[in-house]
Amino acid sequence: MREILQSTRYPFVQAPMAGAQDEQLAVAVCQAGGIGSLPAAMLNAEQLANQLQQLTMQVQGAPFNVNFFAHQPPQYCPQQAQQWLAVLQPIFAELGIDANHIPNSVERSPFDEAALQVIEYYRPAIVSFHFGLPEKRLLDAVRACGCKIIASATTLNEARYLEAQKIDGIIAQGWEAGGHRGWFLDKTLQSQSGTFALLPQLVQACQLPIIAAGGIVHHQTVQAALILGAAAVQCGTAFLLANEAKISAEHRVALMSSSAQNTAVTNIFSGGGARGIVTPLMQRLGIFNEYVPDFPLAGKYAAIIKQAAAEQDLMGYSSLWAGQNAPLAQTGSAAEIVARLVASCD
Amino acid sequence: MREILQSTRYPFVQAPMAGAQDEQLAVAVCQAGGIGSLPAAMLNAEQLANQLQQLTMQVQGAPFNVNFFAHQPPQYCPQQAQQWLAVLQPIFAELGIDANHIPNSVERSPFDEAALQVIEYYRPAIVSFHFGLPEKRLLDAVRACGCKIIASATTLNEARYLEAQKIDGIIAQGWEAGGHRGWFLDKTLQSQSGTFALLPQLVQACQLPIIAAGGIVHHQTVQAALILGAAAVQCGTAFLLANEAKISAEHRVALMSSSAQNTAVTNIFSGGGARGIVTPLMQRLGIFNEYVPDFPLAGKYAAIIKQAAAEQDLMGYSSLWAGQNAPLAQTGSAAEIVARLVASCD
Repeated sequence: MREILQSTRYPFVQAPMAGAQDEQLAVAVCQAGGIGSLPAAMLNAEQLANQLQQLTMQVQGAPFNVNFFAHQPPQYCPQQAQQWLAVLQPIFAELGIDANHIPNSVERSPFDEAALQVIEYYRPAIVSFHFGLPEKRLLDAVRACGCKIIASATTLNEARYLEAQKIDGIIAQGWEAGGHRGWFLDKTLQSQSGTFALLPQLVQACQLPIIAAGGIVHHQTVQAALILGAAAVQCGTAFLLANEAKISAEHRVALMSSSAQNTAVTNIFSGGGARGIVTPLMQRLGIFNEYVPDFPLAGKYAAIIKQAAAEQDLMGYSSLWAGQNAPLAQTGSAAEIVARLVASCD
Repeated sequence: MREILQSTRYPFVQAPMAGAQDEQLAVAVCQAGGIGSLPAAMLNAEQLANQLQQLTMQVQGAPFNVNFFAHQPPQYCPQQAQQWLAVLQPIFAELGIDANHIPNSVERSPFDEAALQVIEYYRPAIVSFHFGLPEKRLLDAVRACGCKIIASATTLNEARYLEAQKIDGIIAQGWEAGGHRGWFLDKTLQSQSGTFALLPQLVQACQLPIIAAGGIVHHQTVQAALILGAAAVQCGTAFLLANEAKISAEHRVALMSSSAQNTAVTNIFSGGGARGIVTPLMQRLGIFNEYVPDFPLAGKYAAIIKQAAAEQDLMGYSSLWAGQNAPLAQTGSAAEIVARLVASCD
């Protein structure tokens, strides 16, 4: 893994952001001297293959990363679903959603046999996992492709687990990070660790290279992370306003307003904890709602609310993922953003 | 304020830690070229005067800081007290505590007229406040003594409020920090900001010098905070194992064990959110318990539990305040600890 990080011009990974980007952002980051990432969690095998085809063609051998979720799909619990529908009832009523006709979509799938076949064909330099690791058979198959494997840890405990699985690098996902917490062993909000603590502790405790994530959004935060021992940094929020990002107008406006100053880790959009800009819907349902179905089962309800609101041009019903340093994110091309981020690295 | 920070050998403040230190730690830090702090929140006027007398005599004109709490004392609510007693009943039973004889002690007092009189006599270079600021009349009187005034902010919103009160500096208290969160406007756990985000945002938004706190425990974290724009750093956990600290044997043992890896912000010991090592009592009562009386009313129950447990040599009943980087704290004299922390500053 260290060789790959040293082979690129900068020790720099663009964070995979499912729902906010496709291969175009990854291509631009690779071309700018960093490691681009393709988020695969919301793609089926065919979509993944199409994006990987584009990415592979355009980066001309530069290393890139493909990210998968590795959660255990939960058992569907009818009682939990009914409770959540009861909580959502007033919102469904005002948006005109029929609770009896919610499409049974799977919003986010874990890495599986079908995805493996695509990976075996395209063999990206790096495959990253969020929410732990897939079962050993799948993990071994990815390794056999020659891919380096990295995964997110939110605590020292999770990092030690990952290191014991003989992967190639660990992403230290600090509390500041936007989007889903990659937690899989330690899910206590009050114990989640800020980058200032998680990063140096993982650097001290682990042999593997540590990639710092969470709050890294300008050249000073890049430099600070490298001083704290990071082998590389991973930046997501810094790219949300990139020309190549695919976010909604509502998301873009919120990021550029004072709303971006107030983010929180919420579970209402998927059932899992994820950091986004605080929205009216989050305040109404409670930022952490105890009745939400397990991740990712709540996703289909959030999707139908988002769709109905969009059809009526109503704001305030969507997730607006962003990290705590969203107010420092800047606009521009991905190449310009990379150049600003690594300004202290040359 | 900037002049004071530049007048000392290092841009370095030792964090006030009520219950974990007296003037001896502050003296040692001042003598080592930093700014020592005296925590006054758990002292009456006479105790405060005694410690200030010692401190003033021994530091020979070097600047030091005296810290006060500035919370609004809550109304006592009999129903809340009864609910909390019901929660605590099994613990009282096993420790043999008589719920009808709990001394009505005030564990933590806000800054008041009596404290002001002591400040007017000793006129420390810096007075710092936690949980907001005292009423304007008291604040003006402190300012009239020639003291520089600083206070803690946990969000951008709180920092803006403090700046508008025309104080002299702001402590950016990141999520990683040990002990009580100084929050006074924004008390949502899910929105509390890590040092990697809070610090650069306050530096960007405020004119006042920003003192970084939370996760700063070795020379790399000091250096990283300075890169992020801090005018100075404030370190607390780094001094918990100092020879001059006054912590219990249980606290010291926990800090030096793997327990120190797991801290959380809990409300069970005082009613306010405060970060400490996760203990059996926290797990038993729930790390955030909804029935706890408002800060600081819960303190007297925690105090009687701590005392009863100590008399029976039982571990696991005390608060063990510590920041998220507690595993990186080292032993030694305060002078040695300062020298290690500022190793990159010379």
